[in-house]
Amino acid sequence: MSSWPEDVGIIALEVYFPYQYVDQTELEQYDGASAGKYTVGLGQKRMGFCGDREDIHSLALTVVENLLRKYNIKPHEIGRIDVGTETIVDKSKSVKSVLMQLFEPHGVTDIEGLDTTNACFGGTAALLNAVDWVESSSWNGRYALVVCGDIAVYAKGPARPTGGCGAVAMLVGPSAPLVFDRGVRGFFCKHAYDFYKPDLTSEYPVVDGKLSVQCYFEALDKCYQLYCKNGEKKWQKDVNVDSFDGILFHTPYCKIVQKSVGRLVLNDFIRLPNDKRLALSPDLAKFAEVELTKTYFDRDVEKAFLSASSDTFDKKTKPSLHLAANIGNMYTASLYGGLASFLISKEPKNLIGNKIGLFSYGSGLASCFYSLQIKNSSALDTLINNLSHVNPLLEKRVKVAPEKFEATLELRKHSAHQAPYEPKSDVSHFFPGSYYLSKIDEQHRRYYDKVFQSCMSNGHT
Amino acid sequence: MSSWPEDVGIIALEVYFPYQYVDQTELEQYDGASAGKYTVGLGQKRMGFCGDREDIHSLALTVVENLLRKYNIKPHEIGRIDVGTETIVDKSKSVKSVLMQLFEPHGVTDIEGLDTTNACFGGTAALLNAVDWVESSSWNGRYALVVCGDIAVYAKGPARPTGGCGAVAMLVGPSAPLVFDRGVRGFFCKHAYDFYKPDLTSEYPVVDGKLSVQCYFEALDKCYQLYCKNGEKKWQKDVNVDSFDGILFHTPYCKIVQKSVGRLVLNDFIRLPNDKRLALSPDLAKFAEVELTKTYFDRDVEKAFLSASSDTFDKKTKPSLHLAANIGNMYTASLYGGLASFLISKEPKNLIGNKIGLFSYGSGLASCFYSLQIKNSSALDTLINNLSHVNPLLEKRVKVAPEKFEATLELRKHSAHQAPYEPKSDVSHFFPGSYYLSKIDEQHRRYYDKVFQSCMSNGHT
Repeated sequence: MSSWPEDVGIIALEVYFPYQYVDQTELEQYDGASAGKYTVGLGQKRMGFCGDREDIHSLALTVVENLLRKYNIKPHEIGRIDVGTETIVDKSKSVKSVLMQLFEPHGVTDIEGLDTTNACFGGTAALLNAVDWVESSSWNGRYALVVCGDIAVYAKGPARPTGGCGAVAMLVGPSAPLVFDRGVRGFFCKHAYDFYKPDLTSEYPVVDGKLSVQCYFEALDKCYQLYCKNGEKKWQKDVNVDSFDGILFHTPYCKIVQKSVGRLVLNDFIRLPNDKRLALSPDLAKFAEVELTKTYFDRDVEKAFLSASSDTFDKKTKPSLHLAANIGNMYTASLYGGLASFLISKEPKNLIGNKIGLFSYGSGLASCFYSLQIKNSSALDTLINNLSHVNPLLEKRVKVAPEKFEATLELRKHSAHQAPYEPKSDVSHFFPGSYYLSKIDEQHRRYYDKVFQSCMSNGHT
Repeated sequence: MSSWPEDVGIIALEVYFPYQYVDQTELEQYDGASAGKYTVGLGQKRMGFCGDREDIHSLALTVVENLLRKYNIKPHEIGRIDVGTETIVDKSKSVKSVLMQLFEPHGVTDIEGLDTTNACFGGTAALLNAVDWVESSSWNGRYALVVCGDIAVYAKGPARPTGGCGAVAMLVGPSAPLVFDRGVRGFFCKHAYDFYKPDLTSEYPVVDGKLSVQCYFEALDKCYQLYCKNGEKKWQKDVNVDSFDGILFHTPYCKIVQKSVGRLVLNDFIRLPNDKRLALSPDLAKFAEVELTKTYFDRDVEKAFLSASSDTFDKKTKPSLHLAANIGNMYTASLYGGLASFLISKEPKNLIGNKIGLFSYGSGLASCFYSLQIKNSSALDTLINNLSHVNPLLEKRVKVAPEKFEATLELRKHSAHQAPYEPKSDVSHFFPGSYYLSKIDEQHRRYYDKVFQSCMSNGHT
């Protein structure tokens, strides 16, 4: 008998994002960019952002408390907390230690797990560590709680509209509705300076835009190939894009994801025997000799495989981009916002038995392609019901003019690491139950308050 | 049959530290401190430090390459790398991604794992994640590599003599000579601002000295109590300090470890039934009613239990303080430098069958008490033989006058996060095989060179 519990995976999923956004069409105009540059070129609609009342602690406290309340999870039911983030406010103290404030008052202090870092991959690494823990001898029968969250802001310029902000919390354990496939994950890691944050005084990253796209595609190719190889060995059947009901991606901006689906179809194409490649439509057959590593910026290949993959994209990927298009890049939480978007796009009964492929990418770089199987259980209904606040909440947000958005980012820029500091932003529009920064004292200690949350309310309503 | 492999634990252990140190007696004089303040009061002899040629990357590259070479491990034998550090040079890019440079040239890119952070506990969290992985369905038969390393420097003042610098690499897998006991670990975590690094422009932490000592002792009490409870349930026998052949601690400075052994004996005393407590010598019996949480700074209790634990300290703990006394605090690597020190203090045959208790602590805070069992195997001899360089290397170091030490810290202070930057320190005394920073370019990208390492040499000789 295996000592690994059955059906280890995601039992609960909670999403949190700030109350304000800027409209990408308005931002295009304000920035003097050509019409459609952000909305069509990047595929973005709105961008969430936050003022000086929010940091990684406030996001994490809020999303965790919301999850525990909605699922009626008691503090002593949590045995491990893993946090993935790259929105560092301290080089030493973990966000996990800050989250302990939600558990200590209940006498719960024996909680394993820490923070895990590598750009946007930290959330997936935290999740996989939690899954490993449940399967290991360290597991004590309690749930693991995984928290991913980030504030993505860029210096004024072409990368600024690719910002975003949000957090996701997940509960991991056995008998889950979203079950990790075992022994098939494909990893790819290498040393790259595509996107990094070496200026510790700034929230802005250093980005080599072109290298970043190349690294993302290279990682996708390598992870997907390894996943297919592992899957074919394990399941003794072909693995390709047709093997999935949903294919989800880390989403720096929506357009790169659409291109990525094209790349998977390109990968499937290249894996075919030569005669099968040549037997396809002439539009594709002409690329029979193409080398993957020479196609990162090949417009002809891109166009052909975008076209060949458009049905796959529409059915299996587009529904996952809802939060990414309306909030922007949540870095570590991006892929899991994609998972939430995908789940709420369908009737629960149409999800049962689905296999979901997920590609997680973090610059620097670390990446993985893995898959989840959706099981029929009452926990699936609960999980999806508990995401019913997402769409209403997206619409409840406050639209802010580009001038005000820019002023808010300036405020963050100058206050990010100040101490002592009294935050200035108004809290009157914060969603109920949100934690916010009340002050930073002269010793850099951070204090938080919470917007009143009615006991009767289920989440943010 | 269990799906967990047998005897999962530490298979290889490599230690690296920089070539220069300052003498603590000389530093006392230079600082105008009372004689014995650092050497007796803190229990420190020498402090390792580094100039502007070393950072967390150079330390990690060096210790990993040394381990792979000495144990003749090929890059494709590594399936996971976990790094624990709080010496952050980037908020996003992981040290693990930098280490990939040792693997990519061999075509090895499918390596799991990332960096893990919470002060000095990051190394233990990395190690436990690696152990969980080997027991999980994610394991693919390859080794996990765990790297802990830090540069501990403090602003001029009373904390400065508690600095240090070094790195440890460990190989984790099944059939290990140092085997993790399953199901007995005791964790304690809470939100505390005892030691943290909120000033991201500085390498220096903010330290609340008194709170830090209180947090360390509280964490030790809680972790040890939980370990004893878990152990007594699992093994159906009493667990106390007599259960161990070695008791090892995270070592900010040696004196606190000596006091900690006293605290474990105090914990054992308090866990005794009342009549047994009263039947002990009057020196102890008079504390029969004492409350643990009121004793953190109680000199009478401290003195009585220091005295009652002195044999235990001398036999089971003192041998583990060799590197800590001669190098100082290596933060995440401190406990594992203690493990190396303990192992080389005995004949291998006298280690077989030993049970070692280990207390890991990271401010903020996260902590754990766990235990290892030493198994008889040829791998034990190899592991200990491969540590034979440690003592000769300690003596090969260059002693530097306090003036020069202070000037070097000033150089680090001003150069820590500069870009572009050309390091100034001389490399002529670096140990063979050491990586060092050659330059930081205008995009903050870091480049490294390596001191020539003869192919015939076994390690640093």
